[in-house]
Amino acid sequence: MERISTVSAMQARAEALRLDGRRIGFIPTMGYLHEGHLSLIDEAKRDSDITILSIFVNPAQFGPNEDYNSYPGDIARDELLAEKRGVDIVFYPSVEEMYPHKQLTWVNVETVTEVLCGASRDGHFRGVSTVVAKLFNIVKPHVAVFGQKDAQQVAVIQKMVDDLNMNVIIRIAPIVREPNGLAMSSRNIRLTPEDRKNAVILSQVLFRAKDGILKGESISSVLAAATKDIQAVAHADLEYIEALSYPDLGPMTDFNNDLLIALAVRFGNVRLIDNILIKKSS
Amino acid sequence: MERISTVSAMQARAEALRLDGRRIGFIPTMGYLHEGHLSLIDEAKRDSDITILSIFVNPAQFGPNEDYNSYPGDIARDELLAEKRGVDIVFYPSVEEMYPHKQLTWVNVETVTEVLCGASRDGHFRGVSTVVAKLFNIVKPHVAVFGQKDAQQVAVIQKMVDDLNMNVIIRIAPIVREPNGLAMSSRNIRLTPEDRKNAVILSQVLFRAKDGILKGESISSVLAAATKDIQAVAHADLEYIEALSYPDLGPMTDFNNDLLIALAVRFGNVRLIDNILIKKSS
Repeated sequence: MERISTVSAMQARAEALRLDGRRIGFIPTMGYLHEGHLSLIDEAKRDSDITILSIFVNPAQFGPNEDYNSYPGDIARDELLAEKRGVDIVFYPSVEEMYPHKQLTWVNVETVTEVLCGASRDGHFRGVSTVVAKLFNIVKPHVAVFGQKDAQQVAVIQKMVDDLNMNVIIRIAPIVREPNGLAMSSRNIRLTPEDRKNAVILSQVLFRAKDGILKGESISSVLAAATKDIQAVAHADLEYIEALSYPDLGPMTDFNNDLLIALAVRFGNVRLIDNILIKKSS
Repeated sequence: MERISTVSAMQARAEALRLDGRRIGFIPTMGYLHEGHLSLIDEAKRDSDITILSIFVNPAQFGPNEDYNSYPGDIARDELLAEKRGVDIVFYPSVEEMYPHKQLTWVNVETVTEVLCGASRDGHFRGVSTVVAKLFNIVKPHVAVFGQKDAQQVAVIQKMVDDLNMNVIIRIAPIVREPNGLAMSSRNIRLTPEDRKNAVILSQVLFRAKDGILKGESISSVLAAATKDIQAVAHADLEYIEALSYPDLGPMTDFNNDLLIALAVRFGNVRLIDNILIKKSS
């Protein structure tokens, strides 16, 4: 497995691969890899000749009071896991390499960034779309894979790719869950043992909500039940639970679109998200 | 000469050219070509195997009270001129092709867009940087050529390319002037014969200002003289004349950077810009 840490070396390598007719599959990550990330590698490998995984904890997508400085990391472990899973190149730039000068250029996606996590995490999606645009220009992928766990991120990236005519296919891999249903997240490690057990409530309320919708219950009643169930759990601080049309993230006026039910819950200073998608054909 | 009008056909053609090892030189224009544009073609040809010229009057960079609807155009004439000058491919998309859905994604370059033309043309540079990002993703150039006449645009594009790690070399071609000194512009055709004659004042004050600076006059005194000279001309409505550090477009505190003197003047409803660059080594 190759390791590349400079933008110029990565661009030169990517350009050479493309010239050689290779199809590049890309998995952008913030590292501290778990089975969710590794499933993205599998998905990338199904549609590429070369898989490139980036590890970059992007300061531009963290707010001043967020967990940038405590975000977990272990590059040696990540490299081992990536290599074992068949990654060909790990791109691991420093912050100085990615932001050598004062960044004045930002990619802003409107509307879809203003709800759910975007409502409370000011500037978060601006940081995400900007760094993904940068990484696409550096890694030059044909295909990039993102996890459905960040459903809003997926919607933002797909809209950016469409609006800016980026010639990159976006593939979505399903949420990978622990045996009890908790969605895999690099942040789970920071939960206390008790909170980690209790955090199962996130997926439980989502599964119940989907069942309710499919049985014909109203959106407002399933959301009310979910809210009540979360509020009954010790330390669980509900930030939002919302049901929106997907992927436009507008209000759900009829069932002509997929329905996304998404939530964010804090346990102490650990913020977890989860979601479930109800296909219109379901 | 090839003519391409869809995004998908242009992307496929550009990708095939790159795979074939060809170096793509790109000249983005709004059409109604004049000798200034044609000099950009020459510059592109010096550093590429294939030159692609785009013609697209981009509604996103015109304000509601600006001249989008009266912007001159003549595609047959443009194609003839482009072919004669050696362009290989003309990319000529419709507005619907470039903006098929409601555009929610905007590339914003801060600071350098907030002075000069950016101060009065709200949203103009957001429209410019966004459409250039789109065109780069569609035409996939190795090199793109812009005219020094839009000095601020050049500064904005170069900053965007650097900040977003776009792997495109930006080349700048000098301002091409009519024999009397008037900078070539597609908008000159819309001047009355009298105004067109009087518009020579723009270049005259800039040449005088440069002479003054090189002789050791202060920036404020050359700007004051230029302002007075423009105000003495019939119908000339001075929007701004400013001297800024280049390319950061900050205040000129010492002579460690190049100095840009730029101006915008209206004659009736025709807005003209011009500028002169004084190299720090001069």
